[in-house]
Amino acid sequence: MADPQVQHVSTIISAKWICPVRPHNITLEDHSIVIDQDRIIDIIETKKVASLYQTQEHFQFHHHIVTPGLINAHTHAAMNLFRGFADDQPLHTWLNESIWPLEKKWVTPDFVYEGTLIACAEMLKSGVTTFNEMYFYPEAASRAIKQSGMRANIGLFVMDYPSNYANDGDDYLMKGLEARDGWRDDALITSSLAPHAPYSVSDKTLSQVLTYANQLNLTMHMHVHETEDEIQESLKQYQLRPIERLNRLGILSPQFMAVHSVYLNEEDLTILSKESASVIHCPVSNLKLGSGMADISTLQKHGINICIGTDGSASNNKQDLLHDMQLASLLAKGLTKNPATLNAKTSLEMMTINAAKALGLDDRIGSIEKGKYADLTVFNMDHISTLPMYDPMSHLIYAASREEVSHVWVNGILQYEEGHFASMDIQACKDIALRWQLKLKQNI
Amino acid sequence: MADPQVQHVSTIISAKWICPVRPHNITLEDHSIVIDQDRIIDIIETKKVASLYQTQEHFQFHHHIVTPGLINAHTHAAMNLFRGFADDQPLHTWLNESIWPLEKKWVTPDFVYEGTLIACAEMLKSGVTTFNEMYFYPEAASRAIKQSGMRANIGLFVMDYPSNYANDGDDYLMKGLEARDGWRDDALITSSLAPHAPYSVSDKTLSQVLTYANQLNLTMHMHVHETEDEIQESLKQYQLRPIERLNRLGILSPQFMAVHSVYLNEEDLTILSKESASVIHCPVSNLKLGSGMADISTLQKHGINICIGTDGSASNNKQDLLHDMQLASLLAKGLTKNPATLNAKTSLEMMTINAAKALGLDDRIGSIEKGKYADLTVFNMDHISTLPMYDPMSHLIYAASREEVSHVWVNGILQYEEGHFASMDIQACKDIALRWQLKLKQNI
Repeated sequence: MADPQVQHVSTIISAKWICPVRPHNITLEDHSIVIDQDRIIDIIETKKVASLYQTQEHFQFHHHIVTPGLINAHTHAAMNLFRGFADDQPLHTWLNESIWPLEKKWVTPDFVYEGTLIACAEMLKSGVTTFNEMYFYPEAASRAIKQSGMRANIGLFVMDYPSNYANDGDDYLMKGLEARDGWRDDALITSSLAPHAPYSVSDKTLSQVLTYANQLNLTMHMHVHETEDEIQESLKQYQLRPIERLNRLGILSPQFMAVHSVYLNEEDLTILSKESASVIHCPVSNLKLGSGMADISTLQKHGINICIGTDGSASNNKQDLLHDMQLASLLAKGLTKNPATLNAKTSLEMMTINAAKALGLDDRIGSIEKGKYADLTVFNMDHISTLPMYDPMSHLIYAASREEVSHVWVNGILQYEEGHFASMDIQACKDIALRWQLKLKQNI
Repeated sequence: MADPQVQHVSTIISAKWICPVRPHNITLEDHSIVIDQDRIIDIIETKKVASLYQTQEHFQFHHHIVTPGLINAHTHAAMNLFRGFADDQPLHTWLNESIWPLEKKWVTPDFVYEGTLIACAEMLKSGVTTFNEMYFYPEAASRAIKQSGMRANIGLFVMDYPSNYANDGDDYLMKGLEARDGWRDDALITSSLAPHAPYSVSDKTLSQVLTYANQLNLTMHMHVHETEDEIQESLKQYQLRPIERLNRLGILSPQFMAVHSVYLNEEDLTILSKESASVIHCPVSNLKLGSGMADISTLQKHGINICIGTDGSASNNKQDLLHDMQLASLLAKGLTKNPATLNAKTSLEMMTINAAKALGLDDRIGSIEKGKYADLTVFNMDHISTLPMYDPMSHLIYAASREEVSHVWVNGILQYEEGHFASMDIQACKDIALRWQLKLKQNI
């Protein structure tokens, strides 16, 4: 007869090491995460777990580290189909002769659905459970995301220039809000308003964005201060730096995510800090496009909430968040000439709880705590490339790669397990990629 | 009856793509590499191969890119046992309170043999076939290298300070030259003289190094201009910048490899260029230790031969040359604000033919050409993280990771094949790492 004290639960994960992120800077040894349905209901010593819980699904990870699911705080998922299409080109050529004509010719709802699908597969196997998305045709993206089983915050893309998708600010907004109706009741998908950039969105449209954000309680997600040119153009047109302009429009707030933020002067930093806006750092993209290097250490000194994003695969060329985080940490050390800058503990927070906070989801995800949703990434450290190991947390940041990711749970569901996907047909995904490769090669 | 025109050979590798590096900047499609014994004897269209050659070992790589074996131009292999021991520490603490006391306590011939062995395993699976080694007890390193089947240029480590290994300049030199006798007839191992750094080696010892290098026709391999402090100290002690001092001693030549070279002024650049010395760029280590960022684009403009090194795993923390190369390319783009800087073609050359040239081995390795030794790395690009693919060469640099490495040949022998090693017992390697982990943890 079953012990009446013993609770039957969905899943127990017993791991050698758990980095829960909250409480701060601890690594639990020989502990278990107890999951029931979609939630974490307990975290206890493994030797005690059997006396309290029983399950049909008990995972024993003897050489593994479990972290909260990683959160990619900025991407254009569908651009996976443009991965490596136009490498080693100067920025102007890249945009004007490659990416924009490609988008004009090829970007349709099918493109976005299929491109997002393959990006989801890549992100999942890279340990990402949630991503912050911005691209055309959000409805198509949402279909792929639902299929993948991932969590996402979908940006309702807005600008004042016409595209295949919409004609002007009003049209983008209308289409975005209509698309949002399709996932409003989905447990895994939330929405943000995603004005493209200061140079492509007028004050009038930005005011509308703000109105909707307030009315619907949505976050906002925008490319800001990516290049020096952008700032010079704004000074010419508005006699204001973009961040100053956004601040005057009242847009900056804890709900605002300033993607890139490569060039910030003391005034910009003070504004972002005062308004409690988040910064999404995309170091690979910033280097690859020759934009420059954000000075993360100075952002930290201003107490700004910093997260990490891959950006789209046209400028990365990977959806590999851990790689971006490692680069961010290395760059910050190199720029400050101090190996203690942006340490492993803070790096892990940037990929998890900081991003959850930026997305307004830190009550639900971003750490391994009782009551949060079971979004978990497991790294198998029993590899010749990760041994010996003296400190699991610093090993995650400096020695591990996405190839160490062995299991990924999203919302209590084991979506990825050692090369196998629960909700995705990976051969079909590869076929999609190859089909588009063939089509797009005509443009080269 | 066999066609008398058809030659029987050891191995044929038919691949969708081959990046031979020489001739410059070409990617061959549907070609085959024909290997007999240890050499490449032909590179021909796959449709013609059967009419000329037959073999028992025919590999068909339908989704793969074959490159010359990658060459790691600077490492301290045995330091794999210190991987991640002292992350996030300021440089002074890292050296004085972690690395140097650790080395004093633990570094023995056994440590070097076992540490080198596990580094060889990691390098092989990362696509590296040759490495340029510098550490204590080179005899012990050579035993591990022979066991691994890799090619290496072993540095005969020299400095004026005592260590467990030797007492003074003369003692290091004597022991190094004696060790060299143990591998002089080995087909895969060559030697260099490896004075540690300008601040640890006197003029007298450097003159002896030069004498031996000339007499024995050896390359030289030295840390140079790694930090600003090093240059300031040299100005105080010698009233010369280190490179100026080395030049006056007559040491700089095409046989000299200047590792790091982070801080170079116009005069340093002119000297290195005039003397045709090579620079070994170690971008991860330079960032991780807070040393700074070498300006590779300026080195290129001076026509200097540039190679890539991982440095030891205590400051990287990976023996993942492709990762260092990707970082080098990204950094150079970021520093110059030009995405066309350090393109994929040049990056591939730095990891192969440039390094072969620095090691004095460019008549034997570094490209896929008739007559060269069969050192080859195969990348399987049939993964969701590498699809679609528009340009194989740029995909190698910007999208691929070492997880794509599927097969590695060294000197005509298939040493690594999808997780399996021909000459190494990987479980034994992991056990070694774990044993040292246990021992060294006592020091934490």
